[in-house]
Amino acid sequence: MSRLVKPHGGGELKPLLLEGAALKAELDRAKGLKQVKMSSRETGDLIMMGIGGFTPLDGFMTRADWEGVCDGYKMASGLFWPIPVTLSTDDDGIKAGDDIAVVSDTGEIMGTMKVTEKYEIDKAHECMQVYKTTDLEHPGVKMVMAQGKYNLAGPVKVLSDGGFKAKYGAQFMTPAETRAAFEKMGWSRVAAFQTRNPMHRSHEYLAKIAIETMDGVLVHSLLGALKPGDIPAEVRSEAIGVLIENYFAPNTVIQAGYPLDMRYAGPREALLHALFRQNYGCSHLIVGRDHAGVGDYYGPFDAQKIFDEIPKGSLETVNMNIDWTFWCKKCGGMASQRTCPHTKDDRILLSGTKVRAMLSEGQDLPVEFSRPEVAAVLKKYYASLAEHEKVKVELKGHSAA
Amino acid sequence: MSRLVKPHGGGELKPLLLEGAALKAELDRAKGLKQVKMSSRETGDLIMMGIGGFTPLDGFMTRADWEGVCDGYKMASGLFWPIPVTLSTDDDGIKAGDDIAVVSDTGEIMGTMKVTEKYEIDKAHECMQVYKTTDLEHPGVKMVMAQGKYNLAGPVKVLSDGGFKAKYGAQFMTPAETRAAFEKMGWSRVAAFQTRNPMHRSHEYLAKIAIETMDGVLVHSLLGALKPGDIPAEVRSEAIGVLIENYFAPNTVIQAGYPLDMRYAGPREALLHALFRQNYGCSHLIVGRDHAGVGDYYGPFDAQKIFDEIPKGSLETVNMNIDWTFWCKKCGGMASQRTCPHTKDDRILLSGTKVRAMLSEGQDLPVEFSRPEVAAVLKKYYASLAEHEKVKVELKGHSAA
Repeated sequence: MSRLVKPHGGGELKPLLLEGAALKAELDRAKGLKQVKMSSRETGDLIMMGIGGFTPLDGFMTRADWEGVCDGYKMASGLFWPIPVTLSTDDDGIKAGDDIAVVSDTGEIMGTMKVTEKYEIDKAHECMQVYKTTDLEHPGVKMVMAQGKYNLAGPVKVLSDGGFKAKYGAQFMTPAETRAAFEKMGWSRVAAFQTRNPMHRSHEYLAKIAIETMDGVLVHSLLGALKPGDIPAEVRSEAIGVLIENYFAPNTVIQAGYPLDMRYAGPREALLHALFRQNYGCSHLIVGRDHAGVGDYYGPFDAQKIFDEIPKGSLETVNMNIDWTFWCKKCGGMASQRTCPHTKDDRILLSGTKVRAMLSEGQDLPVEFSRPEVAAVLKKYYASLAEHEKVKVELKGHSAA
Repeated sequence: MSRLVKPHGGGELKPLLLEGAALKAELDRAKGLKQVKMSSRETGDLIMMGIGGFTPLDGFMTRADWEGVCDGYKMASGLFWPIPVTLSTDDDGIKAGDDIAVVSDTGEIMGTMKVTEKYEIDKAHECMQVYKTTDLEHPGVKMVMAQGKYNLAGPVKVLSDGGFKAKYGAQFMTPAETRAAFEKMGWSRVAAFQTRNPMHRSHEYLAKIAIETMDGVLVHSLLGALKPGDIPAEVRSEAIGVLIENYFAPNTVIQAGYPLDMRYAGPREALLHALFRQNYGCSHLIVGRDHAGVGDYYGPFDAQKIFDEIPKGSLETVNMNIDWTFWCKKCGGMASQRTCPHTKDDRILLSGTKVRAMLSEGQDLPVEFSRPEVAAVLKKYYASLAEHEKVKVELKGHSAA
């Protein structure tokens, strides 16, 4: 019997992706259906349902689910859920009872849905409840506000993994695959390290604290859409790969990725991160400073505190809180605000902006901040960007000439 | 309501030390009683019962308790207990029903006991069960084999703390005192770091891993008897004090001591260490490599494994296992065998013998091995030892002249 945490809801994993003949038949049927175009966020959510990451959902949420999730963290069934998973449209013609095909922004048919309900929502209410703001500068709020007039609820059949497997290969692991890998390693206490950035020493330290006291760590990278300026997934993946190869002991870490877009919902998203990590088989989610946050919308430790505020037993996967981490010269080692008694001046702290600037200029990062192997991958990426910019500028110059 | 772990057995703390008028009256009565001299180990156990550290024991164990503990980790009542807590004598005259006074090896009346049972034990059986050996080179075995012919069971009244409070002051905290301190700090997840040595960086690292993920650490030093050549408690305490002062953040660590002698029973003693830490209010016991071991009698991780072998629910306090820790030059930081992929040659490893030799010769220890402030305390101690030896040699030379 598996010693891993159970999928959310307590049952089996529920991947909604069709396979083989069933997939082919449904794809044929889908071609004759009315199409609804999904946003990037909606497409990611659908793929996540396809691979079982959003177990036990069987489709996009109803109005009652939406309201329960916004106002009380639970679906109409009573199941804990922290963020609405909804599909929207501006199409006035669609009505309850219709069968539709849902397509990605590139026009690929991603799935089909039996519409059971068409409803309108108070978007500002969703934003206040989930994001704690209606400020359009917030990328999550912007995403909600840009949704269609109506939400469509109903069970889905998923017909594509969105090309993630083809693009990322073995690194795009489904929840069933991570669970099988953990079982094979004999792991039961597994911490997920959520990341949308390359791992510097501060992140390595977080992961290693987990490894010191647990069976292993899943370094779990977001492969969906990010803010402009963030490092692309393939570069991150290479940088994390060289880190693991050179600085982690064998059989203590697995690198994988998942298909969602960032919502930047801070505390609420931390709960979602824990929820789907439970489906992936992780017993813990590492929650650091400003987890899944953006700007100053959330307190630095709100995403840790929220785990104490939800009803006990909401999730089997629990948070492993860690404070802000850094190299301290006086400690002569990695530390956090909980373990270092020294001052800011003793610590090697570089802002994201500063790091980007240094790497773009081809400078080395301090070895206390980033492993040289990791910095080399990032420098190569920034150099290629610069080359690209140069070519663009030259081409522009050329065409102008 | 307290969020701390409950005392062992699930009830209230049960300190058996009398106070005030009751103490005075019982001391007067004790003076008229037949005396049984206790070994240093027995005296430590009695004091521990006095301060409530061995809650819920109310005296030395009966034959049924002894047998149950040796063979099945439980007392006649069914209560989990890993190591016999017994009193022995060679006195043929004492019989069940007698009231006796128990005295320390310096003759101080430490307590009184109503003898309910006098029995003989198979000492070799106790040694095999508890220490896994009957080798007299094992200090724990030697201690059991040196016991009297008979064991005496019965409830005790404790009349002294053995002078620990006078000698160690605020550092000799009772379980009620550590619990009050934890409550005051708002702690509920507290790891005990058991030590009988000064803390070098490897030990600091163990404690800090606990602090990163919990509310705080109790650095809990053995104040009772050790093997010859070990560092005395007051020197250890000073060395640990300068470490905490210079390298730990405020409100994350408390230094305290407890009155027991070492038994060196390895895995079984690790269980006892967890049991009485539960009484002190600690939710976790840090269990490293070769915990409470001596020589090669136990595998390096036997003391971690035994926690999986005892019946679930035996203790509320759980083990926090950590592998062998060290500074690794390639990692550029503290690490353990679980987090460092490099080789032995990359690690700064010094044996206890080597450290003693370096300190005795007034050499500095590498800063990656020991904090300079800690090394300075130890150097001062070894210099005073050398001075002492020199004086002894000179006096000898003088008297021989």
